[in-house]
Amino acid sequence: SSSTSPIRATLFPGDGIGPEISESVKEIFQAAQVPIEWEEHYVGTEIDPRTQSFLTWESLESVRRNRVGLKGPMATPIGKGHRSLNLTLRKELSLYANVRPCYSLPGYKTRYDNVNLITIRENTEGEYSGLEHQVVRGVVESLKIITRQASLRVAEYAFYYAKAHGRERVSAIHKANIMQKTDGLFLKCCREVAEKYPEIKYEEVVIDNCCMMLVKNPALFDVLVMPNLYGDIISDLCAGLIGGLGLTPSCNIGEGGIALAEAVHGSAPDIAGKNLANPTALLLSGVTMLRHLDLHDKADWIQNAILQTIAEGKYRTADLGGSSKTTEFTAAIIDHL
Amino acid sequence: SSSTSPIRATLFPGDGIGPEISESVKEIFQAAQVPIEWEEHYVGTEIDPRTQSFLTWESLESVRRNRVGLKGPMATPIGKGHRSLNLTLRKELSLYANVRPCYSLPGYKTRYDNVNLITIRENTEGEYSGLEHQVVRGVVESLKIITRQASLRVAEYAFYYAKAHGRERVSAIHKANIMQKTDGLFLKCCREVAEKYPEIKYEEVVIDNCCMMLVKNPALFDVLVMPNLYGDIISDLCAGLIGGLGLTPSCNIGEGGIALAEAVHGSAPDIAGKNLANPTALLLSGVTMLRHLDLHDKADWIQNAILQTIAEGKYRTADLGGSSKTTEFTAAIIDHL
Ligand SMILES: CC(C)[C@H](C(=O)O)[C@@H](O)C(=O)O
Ligand SMILES: CC(C)[C@H](C(=O)O)[C@@H](O)C(=O)O
Repeated sequence: SSSTSPIRATLFPGDGIGPEISESVKEIFQAAQVPIEWEEHYVGTEIDPRTQSFLTWESLESVRRNRVGLKGPMATPIGKGHRSLNLTLRKELSLYANVRPCYSLPGYKTRYDNVNLITIRENTEGEYSGLEHQVVRGVVESLKIITRQASLRVAEYAFYYAKAHGRERVSAIHKANIMQKTDGLFLKCCREVAEKYPEIKYEEVVIDNCCMMLVKNPALFDVLVMPNLYGDIISDLCAGLIGGLGLTPSCNIGEGGIALAEAVHGSAPDIAGKNLANPTALLLSGVTMLRHLDLHDKADWIQNAILQTIAEGKYRTADLGGSSKTTEFTAAIIDHL
Repeated sequence: SSSTSPIRATLFPGDGIGPEISESVKEIFQAAQVPIEWEEHYVGTEIDPRTQSFLTWESLESVRRNRVGLKGPMATPIGKGHRSLNLTLRKELSLYANVRPCYSLPGYKTRYDNVNLITIRENTEGEYSGLEHQVVRGVVESLKIITRQASLRVAEYAFYYAKAHGRERVSAIHKANIMQKTDGLFLKCCREVAEKYPEIKYEEVVIDNCCMMLVKNPALFDVLVMPNLYGDIISDLCAGLIGGLGLTPSCNIGEGGIALAEAVHGSAPDIAGKNLANPTALLLSGVTMLRHLDLHDKADWIQNAILQTIAEGKYRTADLGGSSKTTEFTAAIIDHL
């Protein structure tokens, strides 16, 4: 209602096509009268000593204060001595769960119909520990770390999400037949949480078999929860089923109720600034942010307008086989509101 | 020719459906007058102290002596204190490269046409090191080990294979943006070998992106080479594209020119002994073994008979939607020779 003060949310437009697709989100959200006031932060051009990365201290503070944000693609500048921007955000904000809903877009044909999957990825540890070293010349090792705390935390979120969204089943994806201790601990934590949710079915699926089943029949799965690297792989595989990363939203859940939604595709420097980019992934990520804020009416409204525009097919960007400009596609979505 | 003495090859019929599908291979090979004399070895029922596993010492000696073998599915008996049979074979015979050709079977429809991929998996190290421990309560780690020696060896094999089979491109699959040291070393070795094969195109693809591209358009790839776990995942994903593990051959290449072909599907205890199993994966694995022995005429002959039988569709086992018995399908293949 008009009397409510707006919700402040952080916006990282990001690099490359980021600013254009962020513009599209801002226009559509405004047209839908979403009560959000954006705090925009760009990635710095120099390393901020307080974050040891190109992310400014102010931008991280903004997310911490607002507890909610939206992020476009960020290309990590080339050079040594600093961390990937995406990994820094995950670490600094303890973004422990990466949630990617992946569903077929009506009217946009791929080899698969009626895909409707949610991947929930542990986002802070596992194969992403950063711990690696050379043992002797020609022999290197990297450490995969699994903790009870992070595994319970992501498992809790997966079951909470499944219940809140009326989902039937959670599948824990693993390779515990080989990594008995690490993936074994992950499964043990999932089982503990599963016991608290008797209404949600629980199963365990080995990752190789999971990938084979996903390409044969994705309808076999519902919500999938898994360690970091498996989540990285399987969420991209699932995106491929419905058309790619340009169409799939993503939302990172952090400690203290933080939600940072993000488009996970690249910054596409080749088409940046040319009004050709597809804003769908960032838009749908924005929709997941609205749902996190319990603004379900606005979320439904915007999501339907996006899906209808794509389904009709008159206005589609080049990556979807159309010839619309970003601004034309955006205007068409606004017309569908 | 009739004057040549037969080639001795080891046969592990394996468990469950293993003996039935092995019978099919033996009959078809005999009908095609393949000059092979099988040395059959079953998995023991007790741990052999010389191998510390249920594999008998005699069976390993048989493969070492013959340098060539065929293996059905082996279910590792339940209980502690012994290793997986498959992993023991890989280790004891230094089976360093697992090669899986994956091609669409004419007439057997899936969502994908004209798949024609070869995955070559490092088979001895990486995430399969077996090195894991608890650091403190609730914190466990496992070690991924990458060595220059094993990486060069599998890269050499991949390029050798690509050249020998008239393939155009080798893609090295990795996650070196995260595991810079381990996957970085793997890539470095692939690059070194690539330089010796200027006629073969070489590229590097991040595993998450690779899986997305594979489900969108598998024709983007040709030969893929990768560390152990990525190979486990991607070879199963590729099998899914063309119908599953019941249709895909596999061959393990070991030090000293050993080749152990194997069906990588399970032992299917539910249908064992019922004359219902599909022998295709073991048959096509046998064909890769013949190619390794340079018996290309016999290999072509048998492969064509298998593919024609499946393509005609009159005789198909239940897993392919038909109602033929294993023995009927086998007889049909022999009729097509
Ligand atoms: C860019 C890369 C570091 C990142 C990851 O591996 O997590 C990306 O693939 C992702 O999924 O967000
Ligand atoms: C059964 C299992 C240990 C094995 C593996 O992980 O290598 C299997 O998946 C395979 O691909 O042969």
